[in-house]
Amino acid sequence: MAQTRYLLTEKDIPRQWYNIAADMPNPMKPPLNPGTKEPIGPQDLAPLFPMSLIEQEVSTQRWIDIPPEVLDILALWRPTPLFRAHRLEQALGTPAKIYYKYEGTSPAGSHKPNTSVAQAYYNKKEGVKRIATETGAGQWGSALALACQFFGLEAKVYMVKISYEQKPYRRSLMQTWGASVIPSPSNETEAGRKILAEDPDSTGSLGIAISEAVEDAASREDTKYSLGSVLNHVLLHQTVVGQEAQKQMELAGDYPDVVIGCCGGGSNFAGLTFPFLRDKIAGRDLDVIGCEPTACPTLTKGHFHYDFGDTVGMTPLMPMHTLGHTFVPAGIHAGGLRYHGMAPLVSQLLKDDLMRAEAFHQVECFDAAVLFARSEGIVPAPESSHAIRGAINEALKAKEEGKEKTILFLLSGHGNFDMSAYDAYFSKKLEEYELPQEELDKAWSAIRDLPAA
Amino acid sequence: MAQTRYLLTEKDIPRQWYNIAADMPNPMKPPLNPGTKEPIGPQDLAPLFPMSLIEQEVSTQRWIDIPPEVLDILALWRPTPLFRAHRLEQALGTPAKIYYKYEGTSPAGSHKPNTSVAQAYYNKKEGVKRIATETGAGQWGSALALACQFFGLEAKVYMVKISYEQKPYRRSLMQTWGASVIPSPSNETEAGRKILAEDPDSTGSLGIAISEAVEDAASREDTKYSLGSVLNHVLLHQTVVGQEAQKQMELAGDYPDVVIGCCGGGSNFAGLTFPFLRDKIAGRDLDVIGCEPTACPTLTKGHFHYDFGDTVGMTPLMPMHTLGHTFVPAGIHAGGLRYHGMAPLVSQLLKDDLMRAEAFHQVECFDAAVLFARSEGIVPAPESSHAIRGAINEALKAKEEGKEKTILFLLSGHGNFDMSAYDAYFSKKLEEYELPQEELDKAWSAIRDLPAA
Repeated sequence: MAQTRYLLTEKDIPRQWYNIAADMPNPMKPPLNPGTKEPIGPQDLAPLFPMSLIEQEVSTQRWIDIPPEVLDILALWRPTPLFRAHRLEQALGTPAKIYYKYEGTSPAGSHKPNTSVAQAYYNKKEGVKRIATETGAGQWGSALALACQFFGLEAKVYMVKISYEQKPYRRSLMQTWGASVIPSPSNETEAGRKILAEDPDSTGSLGIAISEAVEDAASREDTKYSLGSVLNHVLLHQTVVGQEAQKQMELAGDYPDVVIGCCGGGSNFAGLTFPFLRDKIAGRDLDVIGCEPTACPTLTKGHFHYDFGDTVGMTPLMPMHTLGHTFVPAGIHAGGLRYHGMAPLVSQLLKDDLMRAEAFHQVECFDAAVLFARSEGIVPAPESSHAIRGAINEALKAKEEGKEKTILFLLSGHGNFDMSAYDAYFSKKLEEYELPQEELDKAWSAIRDLPAA
Repeated sequence: MAQTRYLLTEKDIPRQWYNIAADMPNPMKPPLNPGTKEPIGPQDLAPLFPMSLIEQEVSTQRWIDIPPEVLDILALWRPTPLFRAHRLEQALGTPAKIYYKYEGTSPAGSHKPNTSVAQAYYNKKEGVKRIATETGAGQWGSALALACQFFGLEAKVYMVKISYEQKPYRRSLMQTWGASVIPSPSNETEAGRKILAEDPDSTGSLGIAISEAVEDAASREDTKYSLGSVLNHVLLHQTVVGQEAQKQMELAGDYPDVVIGCCGGGSNFAGLTFPFLRDKIAGRDLDVIGCEPTACPTLTKGHFHYDFGDTVGMTPLMPMHTLGHTFVPAGIHAGGLRYHGMAPLVSQLLKDDLMRAEAFHQVECFDAAVLFARSEGIVPAPESSHAIRGAINEALKAKEEGKEKTILFLLSGHGNFDMSAYDAYFSKKLEEYELPQEELDKAWSAIRDLPAA
């Protein structure tokens, strides 16, 4: 019986987060105040985040201790399994060895709770009573609801109205974990009321929901704001994933030639790859690939430039690969990959050629997802299917070249709440969307006068 | 950090199934031919099942080897984790220690693939090309679809029409795994056409779907039938669950005083408890509790009697606790527990006082499920919530009595596909259903002239 799963025990849960800022050949540029265009300081972020998270955001310390209270909760699902994809290899007839790390065993079904638990903990510790956040399809909102429940915090989730109506099950999940979920735009904030006054039928957008959550947090003494990707401290919290994967590859007596993750805001990608990139920076030969949708090609067609993190333009300016904050991606099913920008840390690593990026069409990703589900059993989240497509392409290349090659990718979550996307795929309702160049040009022209990164 | 999960490795996957028939103080009575009322022989079952499964059905051999081809697939998710429910204990303020074994980590999200994989394997080995089955809410159908996919068999699933329409995501799951799913009653069988001729708007029932699947299998040379619970060989395949749990309790340095599972057809209950019941039969003091819904109180209000396994009355007569095969349970959300009968093996054990049974209302089960989700993170399947209710009641009793007590229950699956039930609970749409005595009397009177068991 060939080994299929590489399991670690509770004592193997990493005790520290790995901070890649300590090892990057070029540090990321600082975020800027949008008014003064000067670098922002920790105090600028204090109304929104607890100080311990702000410290992590700017830290260059290589290892940061994970508090025992956080470890106690991570132990409910960590360490997560690493699989050798024997059946997928057979289906492809490839000489490549394919491994995948699976984060779908968390209660919320993705990697997101790795950071929501840490964020809830630090907020609780600093006396915060309530956290406000936004969510699109609900993956992040449910992870934050779970974490707030564990620490006895109130969670207020502004959920994009169209998703609130179309994805009732993720909403129910958040409510089961005690969160208060409201469709955005709502009547509870200035921002929401303003939008509704202009357009009472607005179905909302992530940009509007961010505005509402930020306003909520900024206007209440007991409340802070929380973000599920992009920021340094969020990526930091995900590095438990890659550290575990390194131990598990060791158990397998192997080391990857290629490491692959899907890229939306960059957090699951960073979680898997940063610990391996440390080895690469130290000299190891390693191909690191970020996979994104052609409908939102931030890494492959974006500019490395200062831009706002949100659509409305309320946040500090971030140095990152961006399509421009006014860019509105098509409604692909991989909702978590529909973000105009990219984590500054990931952006800097791409700029420095420590990784590369590939973009895939929706249908080829679902082709990969279904092949994966039929060989390995697990039905992947649409976001994760981009990493599978990348891994399968590498495996097929290895077959063509007759090369043994070791491929590791991150399966960031399961698709249990995304079956309507599979329905659309099977009924051939998914169209290949070709992004018009003029849309890219338009969004880029709206930010080209912001500072160069 | 107190230990939360007890994990085993691939080498700990049980290599044999445990057959409780070898140890029961009183053997179960034989199934009868409904025409002659004589015990049926293996040849009577041959049109529907492959001979290896029929042999297992009648075997009294204590240990039966699990084929390596089956183990290879079980290794995709087995061994499953066993948890110590520290947070639930705290929430209850109980001196009891609560452990739970979790089967929701299988790709289909429940214990069902433990038997679907074995059944698909034996069918494949005996040259079968295609398997027909029925499914209500889709838990069993999806497990069989997964297994058939692994062995390259066609799967045809007759899905009760109302569920086909109301639970499109489970249908999508089956299709993702390559199964052909059709709403029942269908035009593809005599049975279906007959029903549709009488009532073109029929929303179907499990009884009708069984008739269609059995007719399909009986009328095609290349096709056999498959059942997800009740039969001896199905329960046998689930005993990997309890064997693993025994090793894990050993790791925890503990042994349960109470073992608890929910009861529909009896397969998850048997899976956990049979290996422990072996110890009880050998003299160990152990309380074994089957938990069922008050809306379908087979163990607590049924008769131990010969009855048909299906609603229409096509199967052999089985000696079991039954409400009568004409009994139609209310539409509770725990679809997997809506069965008029009970596995003959479980029925015999109840008759022999080796276990006891409790029935719970739907709302108190959801109360338990939500408390569990908020303390342990995992959102339970409505079926599994009955076992949680049972475990919580035992823990509260221990608190009242000031007793330390070790409780082990089976969390048979997650509720990711059942969030509409949680919606109904939170919006107070779940009513306490009191089953009228006359309904029980009516169903009983329809079978009282069948042979006594």
